Amino acid sequence: MQIVSPYVHGYDEAEGLRLQDQAATLEELLHCGTTYQSRSRVLEVGCGVGAQTLALARRSPDAQIIAIDIAETSLAAARRRINEAGLHNVEFRLADVHALPFALSSFDHIFVCFVLEHLPDPAGVLGQLWGQLTPGGTLTAIEGDHGSPLFHPESAAARRVIACQVELQRRAGGDACIGRRLHPLLAQAGFIDVSVAPRMAYANASRPDWVEGFTRRTFTAMVASVRDDAIAAGLADAASFDDGVRALERTATLDGTFCYTFFKGTGIRPA
Amino acid sequence: MQIVSPYVHGYDEAEGLRLQDQAATLEELLHCGTTYQSRSRVLEVGCGVGAQTLALARRSPDAQIIAIDIAETSLAAARRRINEAGLHNVEFRLADVHALPFALSSFDHIFVCFVLEHLPDPAGVLGQLWGQLTPGGTLTAIEGDHGSPLFHPESAAARRVIACQVELQRRAGGDACIGRRLHPLLAQAGFIDVSVAPRMAYANASRPDWVEGFTRRTFTAMVASVRDDAIAAGLADAASFDDGVRALERTATLDGTFCYTFFKGTGIRPA
Repeated sequence: MQIVSPYVHGYDEAEGLRLQDQAATLEELLHCGTTYQSRSRVLEVGCGVGAQTLALARRSPDAQIIAIDIAETSLAAARRRINEAGLHNVEFRLADVHALPFALSSFDHIFVCFVLEHLPDPAGVLGQLWGQLTPGGTLTAIEGDHGSPLFHPESAAARRVIACQVELQRRAGGDACIGRRLHPLLAQAGFIDVSVAPRMAYANASRPDWVEGFTRRTFTAMVASVRDDAIAAGLADAASFDDGVRALERTATLDGTFCYTFFKGTGIRPA
Repeated sequence: MQIVSPYVHGYDEAEGLRLQDQAATLEELLHCGTTYQSRSRVLEVGCGVGAQTLALARRSPDAQIIAIDIAETSLAAARRRINEAGLHNVEFRLADVHALPFALSSFDHIFVCFVLEHLPDPAGVLGQLWGQLTPGGTLTAIEGDHGSPLFHPESAAARRVIACQVELQRRAGGDACIGRRLHPLLAQAGFIDVSVAPRMAYANASRPDWVEGFTRRTFTAMVASVRDDAIAAGLADAASFDDGVRALERTATLDGTFCYTFFKGTGIRPA
């Protein structure tokens, strides 16, 4: 995981569970349309604890997936998860996306999910990844955008805690609102036939799985996880932070609604 | 059109053209999934100049559509549009949604698009519409949400002009951010099997029709149309308003992106 330290989402066990829940709820939303041919070589950049790796490996059982991350503890968790699922098409490797250990043009496809948001120079990294692809190879990128949450009831307190995470991520060199920039980033890196589409997570009382899996366990949990860092950084006091988290939880009640927009993009390295 | 006076979007010819462009670009996005059976009686509430009426009438050629509005000039334009399209399945009627001239349970289906956003009491109106349906009949509602625009480059000036429109609409008794509330509004009005889904207009360089038809001619044009009212209301000065419009236009250039989320919901009057 080419995450700039300190990684705002953290690396602890609760975080690992949150990412598992997120993966289950979101897998179809995010992975739909992504399958790789038999024997194609696929690089997953920043696999973390393997939440997306599992989906990739299941959906492309005959592809050869190489998943890299810079955190050995994350790789160990990812390896365990893939083993427990009985999958044998993933090779894990400790590597930094800024210093890739592969020869140029080593991969038919590259997959990168929730990683560009953490990089100080996503354009530069996309340029490096471009060079790792064979001519005609594809890159798929998925990112969120923390400017996208739309919820009812609206709440200034909730907006402030979301802004805490955006600001912490900015100070760590990232951009929590990168989703909207995905199209120009891919185009400027030299990819052609760039196609980006929004994919929206949407929860209301008629979709209790999304209320629980996304509003509560994914988005609110993620924002809540930066509480100590936000307070330490002077971005919020404890009481106002907790008010904001309660306001997000309120959107998960019977008459609440919550939307979040992801962006999924693909581009081709020209032949 | 049960629009509270003053109708913030205005009624002039430029507005009529804007609504035509919007209808062409958005028709498939908004109307996909909405067709009505032969001989079913369909009430369109607040048809305005007929932008949505045309799509409804084309997509359900054998349904019997009754389209109401409170503005005679809008009805005349809508009638002309339907006649020019050679359609014969629409009857227009001058009526106020707050004092409907029909017997209870007169309709098999009700369609309401970009109307609830203008009403001081959308919940009350939905309750009235519920009563107009036959048991088992459906209501379909489509609304935007002015909290939803996500664009690149981000711009405080652009946010301010959007906020002008939101504030003018609020002062006129409406809610430009009603989309996110559609699910609880329909559920609380007594509809069952309520289903609401986001539908996103998304423009980038790879989708020039959306850049032109939506970013420029629909969203930016709509916001720009409140310029005089915003200045008169003291919400902006001319220079800062024009800066904001230019910032929106900037998102329609080669490396810009623009997203807007509509919500489409349906509910059933229980038998």
